[in-house]
Formats: sequence, C-alpha cells, structure tokens
Amino acid sequence: MKEYCGVFGIYNNPNAAYYTYLGLYALQHRGQESAGIAVTNGERITYYRDFGLVSSVFKNESLKHLTGFVAVGHNRYSTSGASDSPDNIQPIVVSYKYGQMAIAHNGNIVNALELREKLEEEGSIFRGTTDSEVIVHLIVKSKKRKFLEKLMDALSKLKGAYSLLVMTNKKLIAARDPWGFRPLCMGELDGSIVFASETCAFDLIGAKYIRDVEPGEVVVIENGEISSYQIPGCENCKKSQCVFEFVYFARPDSKIFGKSVYEVRKEFGKILAREYPVKADLVIPVPDSGVVPALGYSQESRIPFEMGLIRNHYVGRTFIKPDQKMRDIGVRVKLNPIPELLKNKRIVVIDDSIVRGTTSRKIIRMLREAGAKEVHMRISSPPTKWPCYFGIDTPTRDQLIASSHSIEEICKYIEADSLGYLSLEGMIRAAGGNKDSFCTACFDGNYPLSVPETITRQAEKK
Amino acid sequence: MKEYCGVFGIYNNPNAAYYTYLGLYALQHRGQESAGIAVTNGERITYYRDFGLVSSVFKNESLKHLTGFVAVGHNRYSTSGASDSPDNIQPIVVSYKYGQMAIAHNGNIVNALELREKLEEEGSIFRGTTDSEVIVHLIVKSKKRKFLEKLMDALSKLKGAYSLLVMTNKKLIAARDPWGFRPLCMGELDGSIVFASETCAFDLIGAKYIRDVEPGEVVVIENGEISSYQIPGCENCKKSQCVFEFVYFARPDSKIFGKSVYEVRKEFGKILAREYPVKADLVIPVPDSGVVPALGYSQESRIPFEMGLIRNHYVGRTFIKPDQKMRDIGVRVKLNPIPELLKNKRIVVIDDSIVRGTTSRKIIRMLREAGAKEVHMRISSPPTKWPCYFGIDTPTRDQLIASSHSIEEICKYIEADSLGYLSLEGMIRAAGGNKDSFCTACFDGNYPLSVPETITRQAEKK
Amino acid sequence: MKEYCGVFGIYNNPNAAYYTYLGLYALQHRGQESAGIAVTNGERITYYRDFGLVSSVFKNESLKHLTGFVAVGHNRYSTSGASDSPDNIQPIVVSYKYGQMAIAHNGNIVNALELREKLEEEGSIFRGTTDSEVIVHLIVKSKKRKFLEKLMDALSKLKGAYSLLVMTNKKLIAARDPWGFRPLCMGELDGSIVFASETCAFDLIGAKYIRDVEPGEVVVIENGEISSYQIPGCENCKKSQCVFEFVYFARPDSKIFGKSVYEVRKEFGKILAREYPVKADLVIPVPDSGVVPALGYSQESRIPFEMGLIRNHYVGRTFIKPDQKMRDIGVRVKLNPIPELLKNKRIVVIDDSIVRGTTSRKIIRMLREAGAKEVHMRISSPPTKWPCYFGIDTPTRDQLIASSHSIEEICKYIEADSLGYLSLEGMIRAAGGNKDSFCTACFDGNYPLSVPETITRQAEKK
Amino acid sequence: MKEYCGVFGIYNNPNAAYYTYLGLYALQHRGQESAGIAVTNGERITYYRDFGLVSSVFKNESLKHLTGFVAVGHNRYSTSGASDSPDNIQPIVVSYKYGQMAIAHNGNIVNALELREKLEEEGSIFRGTTDSEVIVHLIVKSKKRKFLEKLMDALSKLKGAYSLLVMTNKKLIAARDPWGFRPLCMGELDGSIVFASETCAFDLIGAKYIRDVEPGEVVVIENGEISSYQIPGCENCKKSQCVFEFVYFARPDSKIFGKSVYEVRKEFGKILAREYPVKADLVIPVPDSGVVPALGYSQESRIPFEMGLIRNHYVGRTFIKPDQKMRDIGVRVKLNPIPELLKNKRIVVIDDSIVRGTTSRKIIRMLREAGAKEVHMRISSPPTKWPCYFGIDTPTRDQLIASSHSIEEICKYIEADSLGYLSLEGMIRAAGGNKDSFCTACFDGNYPLSVPETITRQAEKK
Repeated sequence: MKEYCGVFGIYNNPNAAYYTYLGLYALQHRGQESAGIAVTNGERITYYRDFGLVSSVFKNESLKHLTGFVAVGHNRYSTSGASDSPDNIQPIVVSYKYGQMAIAHNGNIVNALELREKLEEEGSIFRGTTDSEVIVHLIVKSKKRKFLEKLMDALSKLKGAYSLLVMTNKKLIAARDPWGFRPLCMGELDGSIVFASETCAFDLIGAKYIRDVEPGEVVVIENGEISSYQIPGCENCKKSQCVFEFVYFARPDSKIFGKSVYEVRKEFGKILAREYPVKADLVIPVPDSGVVPALGYSQESRIPFEMGLIRNHYVGRTFIKPDQKMRDIGVRVKLNPIPELLKNKRIVVIDDSIVRGTTSRKIIRMLREAGAKEVHMRISSPPTKWPCYFGIDTPTRDQLIASSHSIEEICKYIEADSLGYLSLEGMIRAAGGNKDSFCTACFDGNYPLSVPETITRQAEKK
Repeated sequence: MKEYCGVFGIYNNPNAAYYTYLGLYALQHRGQESAGIAVTNGERITYYRDFGLVSSVFKNESLKHLTGFVAVGHNRYSTSGASDSPDNIQPIVVSYKYGQMAIAHNGNIVNALELREKLEEEGSIFRGTTDSEVIVHLIVKSKKRKFLEKLMDALSKLKGAYSLLVMTNKKLIAARDPWGFRPLCMGELDGSIVFASETCAFDLIGAKYIRDVEPGEVVVIENGEISSYQIPGCENCKKSQCVFEFVYFARPDSKIFGKSVYEVRKEFGKILAREYPVKADLVIPVPDSGVVPALGYSQESRIPFEMGLIRNHYVGRTFIKPDQKMRDIGVRVKLNPIPELLKNKRIVVIDDSIVRGTTSRKIIRMLREAGAKEVHMRISSPPTKWPCYFGIDTPTRDQLIASSHSIEEICKYIEADSLGYLSLEGMIRAAGGNKDSFCTACFDGNYPLSVPETITRQAEKK
Repeated sequence: MKEYCGVFGIYNNPNAAYYTYLGLYALQHRGQESAGIAVTNGERITYYRDFGLVSSVFKNESLKHLTGFVAVGHNRYSTSGASDSPDNIQPIVVSYKYGQMAIAHNGNIVNALELREKLEEEGSIFRGTTDSEVIVHLIVKSKKRKFLEKLMDALSKLKGAYSLLVMTNKKLIAARDPWGFRPLCMGELDGSIVFASETCAFDLIGAKYIRDVEPGEVVVIENGEISSYQIPGCENCKKSQCVFEFVYFARPDSKIFGKSVYEVRKEFGKILAREYPVKADLVIPVPDSGVVPALGYSQESRIPFEMGLIRNHYVGRTFIKPDQKMRDIGVRVKLNPIPELLKNKRIVVIDDSIVRGTTSRKIIRMLREAGAKEVHMRISSPPTKWPCYFGIDTPTRDQLIASSHSIEEICKYIEADSLGYLSLEGMIRAAGGNKDSFCTACFDGNYPLSVPETITRQAEKK
Repeated sequence: MKEYCGVFGIYNNPNAAYYTYLGLYALQHRGQESAGIAVTNGERITYYRDFGLVSSVFKNESLKHLTGFVAVGHNRYSTSGASDSPDNIQPIVVSYKYGQMAIAHNGNIVNALELREKLEEEGSIFRGTTDSEVIVHLIVKSKKRKFLEKLMDALSKLKGAYSLLVMTNKKLIAARDPWGFRPLCMGELDGSIVFASETCAFDLIGAKYIRDVEPGEVVVIENGEISSYQIPGCENCKKSQCVFEFVYFARPDSKIFGKSVYEVRKEFGKILAREYPVKADLVIPVPDSGVVPALGYSQESRIPFEMGLIRNHYVGRTFIKPDQKMRDIGVRVKLNPIPELLKNKRIVVIDDSIVRGTTSRKIIRMLREAGAKEVHMRISSPPTKWPCYFGIDTPTRDQLIASSHSIEEICKYIEADSLGYLSLEGMIRAAGGNKDSFCTACFDGNYPLSVPETITRQAEKK
C-alpha cells in the first residue's frame, strides 16, 4: 500500500521556496516518485519539478532561481496517472487568459474521468493523465468572473478526496474536500501562514500548528488577509477522515485530524494486546510502521519489546531484482532478523496491515529459520477487505486476501501460530472519534460517496 | 564520526557481480560516497564505479556488462584522500606487466605517505591520493616472482589497518592486517566462497558464515582451492580489534569479531544502567545507533522505553543548508521529538558517543522545548579523547570535547541534568573479550602501533 | 538572418522513423535548435524530441522505440516563441477527445495572437508560446464532426505562412497556405508517399520528386488513397513564394518552387555581373551561400574564382565569446582569408545579403589586412529594407541598414571600394517567375496580406 | 584516412585557457574524438578533458575554472590506443615526486611497445594505452636530476613521430622529433609565445607566425626566456615531413613546413592537369579537400569549375546507419549531386586520394545516375600503396587498392572513364622541396626509419 502525496504551501515569506523545500523534505514519506516547487513573486510564477526524491530534485542552483514570497510544493506517489510521464509531476503550472496558476493536490477525484470527457468534448486539451489537471481546466473554463468564484464553481463539481493548494500570481488558497478524507493543517511562522499535509513539516521549519483546514473549507490568503469560505453543496457530506493515515501513512511525530499519530498508534497496540493476548517471550515490530503499536502491545502485555528485525534504510525504488534462476531475495533486502534474540523464543510480531499475505508469510518463515519457536502475528488494524478510491494505493478486491479468506484461513496461509486483527471498534476508539468521523470503507465497504462504475471496474482490472 | 568502507568478494559464482551488488547494498552503511564492482571472467577484469549510493551507481545495464565468476566490490566513505576525485573510487583496477589486478581496501595505512614517497622517488606515478594505491604499487614493484610472493612482500611493509580483497585475472585473495583492526568475514554460498566486512551481507544473499579472516592471515582462493598464509613479521603484533565497530558502525544484525552486534550493544546498555542508574519516567534512544543500548538500559532499569525522537530516514548527503540569516534547522532535519510523550517527564536519553558536544546540546534543548522536565544523558561508550588513525573519521584532539573537559564540564556544556559514560571495563566485558583483544586508543590513547608524526600533525591541522 | 524550420513526413513505410531521421538530417540547415519525430502505428502516436542537432537528439536507442508506418519530423529554429522552453519543440503531439494528433509546422501565422486570445477566453490552456499550438487548439475546438472538416475549419481562420504536416493515428495530411510562402514538396519512395520542405531530403533517401503541394492545397493520405482539397476562402490570395529561399536558406542541391536552387543562385551571380561589372583580379565568395553566385559572377565576368575565405565548419551554436577586455574575434572564428591569394589583388567579394552591415565591414577589413588592394562588394539580392513576418528572422527596420541608408552610404559604412546589389527585376527573372509569383516584401514593403499592428509593433521592439 | 591530433600551447598570457580553447577550435579538423586543456598558475596544474568536439567539451563554466598563465591543449583522433577509454584523452596530466606535468602529443612512436614493456618490467603502472603515456613514464623514471635533462633523456629513446608540448608547473616546452614528421609552428601574441600544429590557430587568435619548431629541436620557455636545444643522437636523421599534410589534413588557410597549404594544393591540381589532361565540360571537386586542387585543374585546363557535389556539413560521427535490409545510403549522407549541372556532361572529378576505392566507385555511380556522360577521375596525390606508421590512419596494405592493383585496374574497379594520379615528382615539386625533405613512404615504401615487426604485423591484422 502506498499513499498519494504530500503538499506544502507558504504565504508571505522571503524564503518561501526554501521553507517549501524543507516542508517537502519532512513529507517525503508521502511520495517518493517526484517533487516540485512553484513560487510567485507577485508578478510571475516560476517552478522546478523532476522525478526523484526532494534531495535529488533540488540542488542549491535550482532553489536559488525560485525567488518569491509565496510557494507551493508537492511530493508525489502516483496511483491514478501513468507514473512515468513528466507531464504528471506536480505542482501543475499553467498560463491562461488572466494570469498563471499553480496547484498541488493530494487525493483522488472519483468523477474525474466523467468531468474530463465533458471538458474534452468542449475542446480542452489535456497534457497529462492526472485527476488534478481536471481541476485546473474546470477553473479556467468556469464562466464566473472572479478567480475565487471560478475556483468555487470548479470545486463544487468534484466528488472525491482533495487536500488542495492553489497559488495564483498573488494569492494562496487551501481547500479540503467536504468529506475531509486527507489531512491538511494550517500553521504560522513569524507572521507567514503555512499549510502542510502533516504537522511534522511545521516542526522542521519551526512553525506553530494553528488548526486543521476543515472539511469543506476554503481558506484564502490575499493581501495578508485570511478569509474562509464553505464549498457549496456539501451540507450533507459525512465527515470521512482516512483512518489509515493513523495506521500507516502519517509520520508518528505528526499530528493529524487533531491527534498525535504516535499516541493513537500506541493505543492501537494496547487495545490489540487486550483483544488478542498471547503467552510469548518477545514482542517485535515489523519496522518502521509496526514499531509504535509493538511498544503499545509490549507495555500492555508486559512481554519484552525487542528490535528483532532490522530494516535497511538504504533500500530505494531502484533495487535491481535477481534473475528468476537465483533464489528469491524476498523481504531480506529490507529486513534481517537477529537470530541470537529469536532462538527458541515465542514471538509476537506486530505489523500494520496484511494486503496479499505474501510478505507476512515470508517474514514468518524468515523468523522461524532464525530459530523462533512460535510466531504470533498481530495486526494493528482490522482486515483490509475493500479497495480505496480516495487516495490510497490498494490492489483489487481479489488480491486483498481478507476479502476472500477468513482470519483462520489467513493465519494458515501466512503460517502463523496465531493471528489477531485490531477490531474496528477498538481502532475508532483509539483514534479518539466516533465512527461518524472516519472513513472505514477499506474495512467494511461503507463508501461515504457513491463511486462511478468506471472507477470500480478499472480497480478490478488493475 | 564516519567509517571508512565496506568490502565484499565472491569466488566461483555465475552471478558474481549481482551477489556483490547485493553485498554492497547490505554494507551501504559503511560508505555512501562511492561504490564499485570489478569482476573477472578468468581472462579479463571489467569494472564499474561511480560516486553515489549502490542503488544509484548500479543500474540493470551496468550490472549486465559485469560478467564473470569472481568479483570484488567496495563502498567508500573517505577520510584520507580528497573525496572528490574519481581516481580515488575503489576497487582500484590496474594493468601491469603480468596481467590485471583489482583491490578493495577498508582501513588506513599509517606509513602510506612514507612508502609513497619512496615509490615516487623510484619513478612510480600515482593516479589518486588514497592509501590503497600504495599497496598496488608495492605489489607491482616487488622483485619477487610469483604474485602471492609479491603480495606478501608488499603487505609486510604496511603499518596500519587493512581488510583487503585482491582479485587477479584468476585468483581471489583476502588479507587482514596483523592487528585485526577492521572486521573481515568469510562465508559460503552454494559452493562459492564469499568475504564481507560484516555478516549482514551474507544474510542478504543467503550465505553461511564460516569464520573470520584472522588478524595477519592471507586467504588465497585459486583453482577452487583455499589456502591460508601468515603475513611475515607480525608475530608480536597485539590484537587490536576496533571496539567502535560495536558501538556505532556495524549493523546490529551483523556478527563481527565473532559476536552479535545486537547482543553486545544491548549489553552496553545494561551495564550502563548498572553503572549510571537514575530515577526517570522514560528511556529514549537517539536513533538509530542508540536504539539497542536504550533497550538494554530500559530492560535493566525497568524504566519504560519509548521512541521519543523520530528519525527522518530520507536525509541524505545533499541536504541544502539554510542561509545564515534563517534560524538554525539544527538536528531537526534528522530528528523530531514527540511532545505528547515527553511533557513533564524525566527522560533518560541514550546515545552512542559524544564528539564535539554540539549535537547533544541541540538534542537536549529540543527535548526540553518539547516539555521534558529532566534530561539525563547516557552514553554507550567511554569518553572519546583521542583521534583514530585506523579507519574512523574522528576530528582533531582539540575538537573532541572529552579530551579537554571533565565529564562534569561536558554535562554542563550539553545542558543535561546528569551525564554518564559506559566504563572502559564495562565495554570490554560486554564485547566479550579481554582488553588485549581490542584497540581502545580513542578512549585511552594507547595506540597499538606507533603513528608517524606526519600523520598525527596532519590530524591536528584538519 | 535565420530561417524557421524544416518538416518531413512519410506515409506507409516500415522504416518510417528512420527515413524521417534521414530527412531531418538533410534538412538540418533549416533549423538547428531542436529536432523531433512522431510516429504512429495506426493505434498510438509515440514521439521523441529534444534540443540539439538531429545527430545528437537521436541515438539508436531512441529511434528504435519509434515504431510505426507513418511519421512526421521537424527541425526548428525559433523566431516567434521563447526558444528555450521544451514545450515549444515540435512536432506538437496532443491527445484529445477523439484520439491523438501530431503537427509539424514551418512558417509564421500573423493572426496567431488574436486567435490565441479568443481561444483562451473560451478556456483553452496553452502549453507553449508557438504559433503552431494555435492550429492544434483551433482543430480541437472546431464544431465540425470529421477530422478533415475540423482541419479545414481551422486552416480557413489562419493568416500567414504555413507548410504543415498533420498526422493522426491513421492519416497523414500536408497543407500549404494559400500564398505559398514556404516550400513543401511531395515525393514517392517504393510506394510510400513522402513530404519535405526541400527535395534534398528526397535525394538522401532515394525518393523521387513528384510535385509541390500547391499554395492553398491540402493533401490527405488515408487508407493508401491520396486526395486533394482546397482551403476555402483563399480564391483571391496572391501567390507569394519566398524568394529568399533561393538567395540564402535552401540547400543548393534542392529543387524548390519547381526550380533548381543551384541554377537560380548561379543566375543571380551572372545577372549581377552584368548589372555591376568591375575590373578585378579575383572573385571570391563569402562561403557557403556566396559560393554559387560567385561562380556565376566569375563565369560571366571571366574574372578568376578563388576560395579566398576558408570557412570553419565546426563552428556551432555554443562558441564561447571572449571577454570584453580581449580583442574581438569577430568573423574570424568562421572565416579565415588566404593572404597568399589576396596580396595586392583587386577582389570582388560575393555575399547573399547585407543585414546590419557590421559583418560585411569586418570581412572587408580582414581582406584588406590580408593584403587586398581593392575590395568590391557584390550582393546576390536587392537591399533588404523591410522585416519579414512570414518565417524569416529579420531584425527590426531600424537595424536593417538598407532601410535608412542609400547604397552609397552603405558602401562607405562597410568600407568597400564599390558596392552593387542585384536588381529586383534581375532576381525575379533569375527565379524564373513573374513578379506575381513571389513575395518581395523584404525588398519593397509590398506585404501580400495585411499584418496586424500587434505584430509589426512587436517587430519594432525586438 | 584520418589524422591523429592537434596541439596548441601558450606561455605567459592571462587568458591562456581561452586562447587555447580558440586554438583547439581552429584545429578541430585534426581530431574530433576528444579535447582537453591543462593550465598552470605557476603553482598547480588544473585541467578539463572529455570526449566530443571542442565546442561541446568546453562550456563557460568549465573554462572559467581553468585559471593560469600557461596552457596546453589537445584535440584527438586516435589510431593507436583504444579510442573509447577516458584514460587516453589528452593532455595527460600526472603528479610525480617533483611536481606536476601535462603533455599533449601529436604523432606515433614506433618503439612505444618495446619501451612500455621495459618500463612495466621495472614496475611502472600505465593508466591508458597511448604511446604518449610512455613519454611521461620515461621522464619520471629518468635518473637525471633536472627536468630538462630528464626530458632529453626520454626523447633520445623515442623512435617515431612526435610534435610535443610539455608543461610543468612553471615551464612550457615544445619538441619535434628529429625527422620532423608532423608540423609544429611557433608564434607570438602580445608578448606571449604560442605553439600550434598549424598556423590557422594563430590567425584566429591574432598571433603572428614566427617560425617552425625545427626537426630535432626542443624549445624551452621559462621565466620568460626562450632557449633552444637539440635532441641528442639525431644527427643522421633524414628530414621526413609528411607530404600528406598538404594533400589532405591541414586546413587550406594554414601554413605548414613554411608553405601555404592552399598554394601547394592548387599547384597539385595544376600539375595534375598537365600530367593528365582530358577533354571535358566541367571540373568538379569532391568537397572539401578536392576543392582547391580542382580550382588548380580548372585554371590550368580552362575547363569550367562547378560545385557539382554539395556536401552536408552537419554530418557528424554519430550518424545512425540504416538496417541492412534498407538500401545503402552510401556517400549520399555526405554528398549530393546537382543533376541540372551534370546532365549529358563530360566531368572531371578531383579527389585527394583513393584508399579502398569503394567511395570513389559510389561517387562515380552517383554522378552517372545524375546524368553525367563521362566521368574522369583525377587524384591530387600518387597512389597510396603503403601503410603509415607515423600518425596517419591508413588501413592495412591488402586494403589499399593501389598496393595490389594497377592504375588501369583501379580505373575499371571504380568505373571511371579515365583515371590519373599526380606523379610523386610533381607532388614534391609542388610542395616546394626536394625529395629529401619529405616522407614519401605511403607512396613508395621508403620508410625513413626502421619500423619494428610488432608494429608492422599489428598493422597487417588491423
């Protein structure tokens, strides 16, 4: 499972591009495929974008050319959109009749295809294949006169997830879809307003968290004034924050949806320990996302915590796979066990989720080869049964093992001695909300808005 | 502090280059500046080397051209040798009168300068500035007739640290200096012999650890036969394995000098907890090297362990520093605290060492800003007082805070509530040897061999 | 003066991309800034484009990926359009509602700005700044149903110069503006139809010249059938072929507008010799464009021809200029005289045109320094007095020395002993047509269609 | 046939690197494979080298870093030395015991292999495979004390062709082998001394030609003083200047061996016209090297000169060849005929030499296809029968058509109506010397020094 994107924006700062660079640095975990920054000096938007990590895309040279006082940035991991076209790298920057505009978008618009077809029928020419470009065309095509009206007009037509930053030659605008799928935080730094997907970006630059951009809210900053608007037609939209942000995507040192990810994640582990206790000698995490729930499980169960699997952090996207003739390197390129710890021990392994089951199986085999006597798998989220259409890269239903197998069957497939998943109720309780605050579609299939068949069918074919 | 290099070699394998690629991948933590692989098909050595991480240096294309059955590889972080010359990237490959030769070297030759001057006087022309090139010239210049004799002749002239792999068109040779400063392990994979700086490289490729190459030993593999020789003139050399490999450099999932790094490192933490107990609410590590000793400290002291500092693993070498006018980003680009955990708590922070003291000071300030009531620093090694000349990148004496300050003074400088260092005796005990097995020069100034003044003076000026 | 572009297209050939590569190779003189090829296999258009010469843009690898049976290619030297944006490199390839389309355009649309503004008002978003992109948007926005109708609709709105190749997923279409400013030839190769700016492209691939695409004609090739259409609304357009193609741009081994460039160019020299005879010892050309008229002058005048100026053909676009402190390298980097030939001789120098006069002055000074006793300048075209808006890169009027100076004054400025320009009548006669066939606007200001003030003003500011 | 190299050097100029850049620009025709410049500021030599043309190797950035007052530069086309190793790019720059040294070498050392073997036996390690590196090792290995003595010692051991520039941290030295195979000119620019392979390099920078470096002479410039020495042991060496420089390699606007290339080359044509007259309608050259002798032939024979073949000057090294299935593009990528000129005409074609005969055959066929009634081939040099070992890239004897075929047979093979070669006597007369001044080995096999069998055998295998 891989998450879409990270966005960052800043208004009124002489080092706008540099702070955006730092913000993207802190948000690198949300997208490693490409990175980009657009900046305006009030007259002209300039930008730099490329494939690669933030640290390889931006060099001193390229940053220096990005002069201005307002900036937006974007890290991308694509799910929709052919990932290999440079035309899909964000921020998208266009010139149109009344000036320039840059947008950075995290999320997934479920009626994007439908909207695109209509726009193309009217003669619009698209460069790339992202959802995000549809938003740009809707704005430019709107018959409204003022930019904000055009934007509102465009947003009111969108269905799906968007945490969006829009920059014109003079304005910075942040918008979050009425359901509030993805996080979007607002902060303050020495009189500058900043926006970011997660607060860890604020911590790095020394900014103070103010509040979240609310679901359905549009925050406009212009001439130093902040004003707030409501996206029309979303009065009945059910708040549907993505609980998977807590499980996996967000950094543990971030605060999202108003809560500390670390605390929520540890609480997942504690509740899991109460729901699925077991007699064992050691609790070990599958790093990195399993570390915090494993600490929770260990603290609640009093079973000692050890880093029984060591993760190689140099593994990047470009690892060359072995020939088919060679033995499978499997998960070893990422994870290596400590046999001295595991020998003859009963082990509880904590992971955040099971997708296809193949990785869990490999990990458990590796632990047994390293000497573990028993391996009990505990998952810090409920079984993932349904695909996500709102910004998370899940495989099709038939590839999600939990959509067709009972927990017992999964336990057998992954060759664990026992298997326990966190309950949906436990998860929601730990996330501190009531069920009405979160989207739980990937666990129970209750999608908060109807998804067009073109999308669901596409997801089947993937 | 940064470590020199990682080396890997394999003999008699149809996928020699690919396994070397994997081996370097696993050893990436030992050098991130450049990487290279040389391979022989029995007739001709070909090689590929460049600046960058293993994953960016080697692409499918470049690997495919490296066909052969014997290979050596090298990851480099330079201390001696101007780091920016491509002529210093290893393996060094040369053609000479009787064929080709490739060498990969981890360590630091203290009489390199002296040897180089003599060679140059006799008309040798050097390409780069590394110690390692001296070894090559000594071999080529030797009056002995057979290659092995030439090599022995050359090695007997060297003073200092070398874990060395030498490949000719047909042979693979591993050599370790008589003092045994750096680790060098030998393993077996489906009938192929492999060598690596650490066993984590064996784990990734599925090789079995056999034994260490012994201090002063030269292992020769030729025509499928393994033979072992002793470097002449080293009968009285004191075994001097680098204990800092346990403290900091080696991966916790490796075995070096015959011991599990994880176990030794945890034992550091346990002994530290006994030597420097404190009343506190939480034990937190400075990740990554502090994690395992912190677990030891927590288990011994029964003070709960938490990941109170989150490390951003995307931080690479190319981070662009802020302008001097901007606020110092400091350690935040790497580490971010979890305020919810720390607020009003008494914290024990575990780090592996203190060099200048500035980083510790920044970390402690950051923890207090995040709400910590008390911060007790515990270091899983004794005070670092003397520069290393055998392969570790230490600053000059006057920059090592412990060489001029008492522990109390350091405690005050870093603004900790208390400070405790692991004792030398405790460290040696945990490392499982007696004092005669390890080099402890960086702690007590007892250098196992005399270092030429040119080197020590150079170290002063650095 | 620099010319716009070269275009090449081929229909129904298994080596379509390779022949297009060759075609662009032969047309390299028409544009050295960027090159591109788009190819369709009937299903999908793929393309490759970059800055640089054909030989550096296309490598074996990139060509191999361009598989298909129909291709269009483009060499570009920009006059309109910021030359440094990759979005301006042609062929332009877009996806729209009903498929894909690639276009390659040579020429200059004088009402492009006006059309663009209207399109943008209706919500079109442009990528680059070229005239050519306007054509694409006009086609996509047309309300007509069939592609050919859309194209005709679009073309009927254009004013200016276009020799255009349009490729859809299945069709290849060639169109030439009603005035016929730029050349566009049609040929045949083993059953494949080919189009090119000049016939030298046919010679290289072994194709046979059939005929020119006529002014106002649209040739459509689909399903192997060739059909011809007339662009509506151009019944009264005056044929206005660019006579400067003969003077300077076209290769001497090409046939354009139905005539051999070599023969026309030599005839220029002969008529010039009759119109401006002089007593002299040698006729020398300013190579390369002066060579053929110089031969004509020499043959007519019986004054011996010599290559008194040698041209360095390695001079490219990237020559590094000297510091201002250093002496001016001037024209010497391109041209070097042979003093042994020139000493004490009376020289006739033949060049194709005089723009600002500075280069002529430098050449004449260089010839005198090399020993020439007298230097008589002869120009194989009439004085250039008016800017071109149809595809030739002329400076503004006030920079054209002939627009404000008499021939006598120019002669004095360039420090020649005498100066003679070919008469307009002589030129037209040599070009084999009557005055009604050619555009002579740059000589007499008679523009064949009215040019919007926005364009003429822009030209003034340049 | 392709020539080795061009060299350029300058002493005592604040713009040393830039003038060297210009010098290499002017000498680009002598080598297009790689280019390099080394410069000293009196303390330290810095350099920049790469594959490619001068214009692509050097950018503003790279030139700016080359600061100093003395510089040497080199253009290379390799014959000996694997052309694809970056270690073979010149100038060669090395550090040795007593400082740094850079050398740029044009020529071919026939005893290089022998010398190399001896050096390697003594333990020297070579980086590349060029002859030139042998010179460097000989200098460094010399037992003499002063640099000049070391150099003289080294040069006295060399047999073969070298026009050599050697730069130390303070000195610039020019040396020419005792036979004087390759040209080497000395000039003056505003108080700076310059050296170049040909005088066209002086013309570009505005330097004045002083004299040639004499065969066997070593010119040393140090502390602003010029001194001249004689290479010992060359008293009986026969002056053997390469007459092929006049025929083909040198630029027509250069002066070499004290004579104007243009004048010599035209005289070749005139004598050829007297030796092999023919009734014909047109004289046409094979451009570029045939142009000047064709002018001579035309002037002498009174047969009109025309540029009946047009050369595409954009053809570089990277032309992608067609598949074998496609028709042969042959010489057309370089040369295209003008059918309007040739139709029904009797043509004299002038080329500089015939190597294998295949190109001549293609040209003659192409001319006939273009309508020529008769084609008479005239060659402005005698038949090339023997390979060159002194710096010219000739094929082996059995590939030289003239070594095994009579002129009549060649005429038949190339399908000419008649064929005439310039006589050796005529050539020597035109070159203005007596036979004792020139090497004529490629025509008559009289090699001026004995060539080791290893070399001649190697040449056979090529």
